[in-house]
Amino acid sequence: MTRKTDRVVLRIDVGTGKIQREIIAEEDVRTFMGGRVLGDKFLYEEMAPGIDALSPKNKILLGVGPLTGTSAPGTSRYAVHTKSPLTGLFLSSVSGGYFGPEFRRTGHDLLVIEGSSEKPVYILILDDKVEIKDAKEIWGMPTDATQEFIKEESGSTKIRVACIGPAGERQIPYASIVNERRVAGRGGAGAVMGSKNLKAMAVGGSKQVEVADHEAFKSAVKHAFQDISKNPRMREGFTLYGSNLGTSPLVAGGIVPWRNWQNGTSAEAKELFPETWRKKFVKKDVRCAPPCNVKCSKINLVTEGRHAGAISEGPDYETVYSFGACCDVSDIAAVIEADSLCDRYGLDTISMGVSIAFAMECYEKGIINRDDLGGEELRFGRSDLFPKLVRDTAYRQGFGELLSMGTKRMAQILGKGSDAFAMHAKGMEIAGYDPRGAKSVALVYACGPRGGCHKTSAGANSLSMAELRTGEARFSNQGKAALTKASGDKRVLSDSMMMCVFVHGSVSNEASLELLNAATGFGWSQEEAYAIAERGSNLERLFNVREGLRRSWDTLPARLLCESPGNGPNKGQVVELEGLVDDYYRICGWDVETGIPTREKLRQLGLEELLDRSLT
Amino acid sequence: MTRKTDRVVLRIDVGTGKIQREIIAEEDVRTFMGGRVLGDKFLYEEMAPGIDALSPKNKILLGVGPLTGTSAPGTSRYAVHTKSPLTGLFLSSVSGGYFGPEFRRTGHDLLVIEGSSEKPVYILILDDKVEIKDAKEIWGMPTDATQEFIKEESGSTKIRVACIGPAGERQIPYASIVNERRVAGRGGAGAVMGSKNLKAMAVGGSKQVEVADHEAFKSAVKHAFQDISKNPRMREGFTLYGSNLGTSPLVAGGIVPWRNWQNGTSAEAKELFPETWRKKFVKKDVRCAPPCNVKCSKINLVTEGRHAGAISEGPDYETVYSFGACCDVSDIAAVIEADSLCDRYGLDTISMGVSIAFAMECYEKGIINRDDLGGEELRFGRSDLFPKLVRDTAYRQGFGELLSMGTKRMAQILGKGSDAFAMHAKGMEIAGYDPRGAKSVALVYACGPRGGCHKTSAGANSLSMAELRTGEARFSNQGKAALTKASGDKRVLSDSMMMCVFVHGSVSNEASLELLNAATGFGWSQEEAYAIAERGSNLERLFNVREGLRRSWDTLPARLLCESPGNGPNKGQVVELEGLVDDYYRICGWDVETGIPTREKLRQLGLEELLDRSLT
Repeated sequence: MTRKTDRVVLRIDVGTGKIQREIIAEEDVRTFMGGRVLGDKFLYEEMAPGIDALSPKNKILLGVGPLTGTSAPGTSRYAVHTKSPLTGLFLSSVSGGYFGPEFRRTGHDLLVIEGSSEKPVYILILDDKVEIKDAKEIWGMPTDATQEFIKEESGSTKIRVACIGPAGERQIPYASIVNERRVAGRGGAGAVMGSKNLKAMAVGGSKQVEVADHEAFKSAVKHAFQDISKNPRMREGFTLYGSNLGTSPLVAGGIVPWRNWQNGTSAEAKELFPETWRKKFVKKDVRCAPPCNVKCSKINLVTEGRHAGAISEGPDYETVYSFGACCDVSDIAAVIEADSLCDRYGLDTISMGVSIAFAMECYEKGIINRDDLGGEELRFGRSDLFPKLVRDTAYRQGFGELLSMGTKRMAQILGKGSDAFAMHAKGMEIAGYDPRGAKSVALVYACGPRGGCHKTSAGANSLSMAELRTGEARFSNQGKAALTKASGDKRVLSDSMMMCVFVHGSVSNEASLELLNAATGFGWSQEEAYAIAERGSNLERLFNVREGLRRSWDTLPARLLCESPGNGPNKGQVVELEGLVDDYYRICGWDVETGIPTREKLRQLGLEELLDRSLT
Repeated sequence: MTRKTDRVVLRIDVGTGKIQREIIAEEDVRTFMGGRVLGDKFLYEEMAPGIDALSPKNKILLGVGPLTGTSAPGTSRYAVHTKSPLTGLFLSSVSGGYFGPEFRRTGHDLLVIEGSSEKPVYILILDDKVEIKDAKEIWGMPTDATQEFIKEESGSTKIRVACIGPAGERQIPYASIVNERRVAGRGGAGAVMGSKNLKAMAVGGSKQVEVADHEAFKSAVKHAFQDISKNPRMREGFTLYGSNLGTSPLVAGGIVPWRNWQNGTSAEAKELFPETWRKKFVKKDVRCAPPCNVKCSKINLVTEGRHAGAISEGPDYETVYSFGACCDVSDIAAVIEADSLCDRYGLDTISMGVSIAFAMECYEKGIINRDDLGGEELRFGRSDLFPKLVRDTAYRQGFGELLSMGTKRMAQILGKGSDAFAMHAKGMEIAGYDPRGAKSVALVYACGPRGGCHKTSAGANSLSMAELRTGEARFSNQGKAALTKASGDKRVLSDSMMMCVFVHGSVSNEASLELLNAATGFGWSQEEAYAIAERGSNLERLFNVREGLRRSWDTLPARLLCESPGNGPNKGQVVELEGLVDDYYRICGWDVETGIPTREKLRQLGLEELLDRSLT
């Protein structure tokens, strides 16, 4: 018998068909919490180094946290852990919507998927009943139809589905996992599913999610909602503009990169401001599963012109950056269509848009030509080519074969100095905040565990906004390592509780801790909670160290180190990275020469025994 | 209190918000059965002549039949009646899937929608609870998203939705109504919904559908299923190829029209045979709501090339004809994409494809030119233009403004003799069976109550196949009126019971009647059942007569009367229509001079009092 607060692992080998359940030791839950950090622990323990990310030996971990499925706000998320086929390194990718709470209501906290099926399958979990089902009839379908047909076939229309599209099936290294119209986007977890012939996970749960202390939890939830309601950013900004909230100040600060990071601004920049386009395109403000009441997500609809009929949940800011600014496109309708196609085919919008921008620059520099492109001229601004390019990438056909490799591998193939402007870190395309104008962000991209991502190590958006408020100080390296480290720790905590980072940002530390302790009964102090976050960051670092990562890997594209933006307020700025990294390593407790966590730091976090294991 | 076998009308005025229920007099049910004929009766009685089809005075009737929602096979259909904005005449349009039975389980048999709302609304019927709801957030959405968001909003994921897309909202005269991936396609019922600002009807029912005699019904159902299982056409042909079953023999007989009916065959014809493309594209065989067990509907998926990612329930034969043969396109992937876009935007595939084929011929004849087309060359075979043309039609933009009018009005505007090859009858684009090679079909198109349609008056597919089996006799007018009349009566009966015409075709007359009588307790004889069908055809005729229709309206495009196919086995053939019409009128009991039903005929059918009312 399991106790109501036991955390349950459901382990499924899609190769052998073996299905097992395990209880997670309470001490492990106390030490690693849930969501991201617990996933970090499992990923580290379960995977040997050097595994091919697309081999049957890779695993997919899908986990929820102590608050998922409770009445606490912003807790609808789930985290996927795997080894990334894009970077060959650690990957954790998080998505919102309705899937996470539904999964937890099946009575499970962590799904571990192993092996590889010979034939296409999907996993159906209805409470205790777990089946590996034939996916022959849905293999090949886009993500919208996949969800529709699984729901119809199951007869239980309440179920929620996380699935891959044609891109995941074809193991595109930046293929995403899509649930509803939400996405676990970065790093290619969808390709890992594809490599296992696993089309989808479908879940329907009827179990009550239990907390340790009901009364205390009720009171903590009340405090959390009070915090949210007092925050004007949540009440107004997010509700109106979602993650696009900051575009206008970011543009003013030259943080939004134009033309594959050649420029820091554009005459058409205001076309990308949500204040400009909300009225024209936002059809419906939507939220994740209740109890979240912040309708920060937007259903955008195009009702005229070349892109008429396109509908998408999004674009989020990052997609406005990647398909918009980065490709020098100011037509939001085109971005909405590109966004919808990426979701439909199951492609990460950042990697896709940045790869296209990279190809545009290669074309303009004569590194690729019309013959490579089936006669098309892939100049900056050619948003009319987005549908074709996105489709051909998902299906690995035509010029899409090259695009589907991502910027790092494209640059390796194309040569001719193109690696200097291949905007990735560790193989992952960089998100939309220019560190030349907000130096803390350089560390996010250079040292983040999953590569050039805004979400791991720290929130690059909030960091950029914080730096912009400091005026000229944003050009200095002074104090930036501490800023990045603090922001990163908070992020890992959000992803482990697991609470949406936007919501978590408006809930006080006190109310957060109250929620956590009422839910778990562990009586953590603030210090202990943040130590768990640090434990996670170090586990992720050790995972990567075990794969061979050393200090020299923590770097940025030459364009950021040697070239300043061609225009905008950050003209003249480059990133002087080495000093930043020194500071960051010191503050993280990582060896300045090698970038490996020090024995002392690991001892503090109870991870000392992992050091030697990571170095063999 | 209503009795269990009472038939209930739900009347909703979307302008005033008034909602009423009425019981249909038992005598009326006995006289008009249900589905199509009962709808004919209501439409005739409720509408004054001369009403603008897109004015608030038009009504939409949505009805089911005595077998809908029971355990009888093939009974998932519903019928929509309205005045057609395409023809200005009678319209009944039928769709399968899951909506019909779900509607009947709400406890209603006929929905009458009146008036016009000032703001976009949708109707939500959950058993006895009926609401007119704000559709602001879904107005503008394609039909797939519309269904998704209404389901999500209702919280009841079991509900089914019949809705319009952008084409219906813009009142395109051939806009369809879409439920699931099924369509009530022809004649523009979707435009009538659009004119009422009515985006959708959503239904969720929990009531048991009652039959008069349970034991007798059980036995009748058993007999019907036995008939179906004995029929190889149902067991094999339909299950493999659905409505495309007959393409190969139809092509061999020159019945499939190529290049806007200029030709009777093509060197590439075999590309359209389902035997050629099933393996490549059919992903899943699907059925309508249980208890239907004939998986005649096909989910087609394109997984490579220019149209990769397109997914559609279909194309049915008619769409293969309209976008394929008629446009001289042999690329089924292109037809699948066009089909999916028509469904998504809510456009009838026949009218859309035939309008494009007409435009192609106009372009090749120099009646329209590149400037009209934004620089494109609209030659036959240009399937790469389908997505743009379909989208621009649904949104009434660019060249789509002209296409959205349909062939009749396009020819009126373009002039230059183009009306000779505008392939419509009474304004409705003609379906894909060339009457020059199967003379009975000429009567279907010329005299059918809704214009150039294969489904009213008779099944043009089964007629063509029957004629092909007679060899050279198919070129004769001899006996064709009787063939058409008999086939037409059967059709009206199918649509009134209401049983899918494919299923009905394999259920014996005895088993059909057994089902009807066990369900209703009316004890009809075969003759009485067929008299009800004839009553329907005459009601439809009187509706049209009241609108001004006379014999001269019952005609065909000049191409069929004066021009023989340029190639194929029917070369040399034209339709000699007048003799056929004489015969047909006589056999129908319609006046040979005027085409008006004779007093004697109407007296036989108990409709005499309608004659004078139809002539004022």
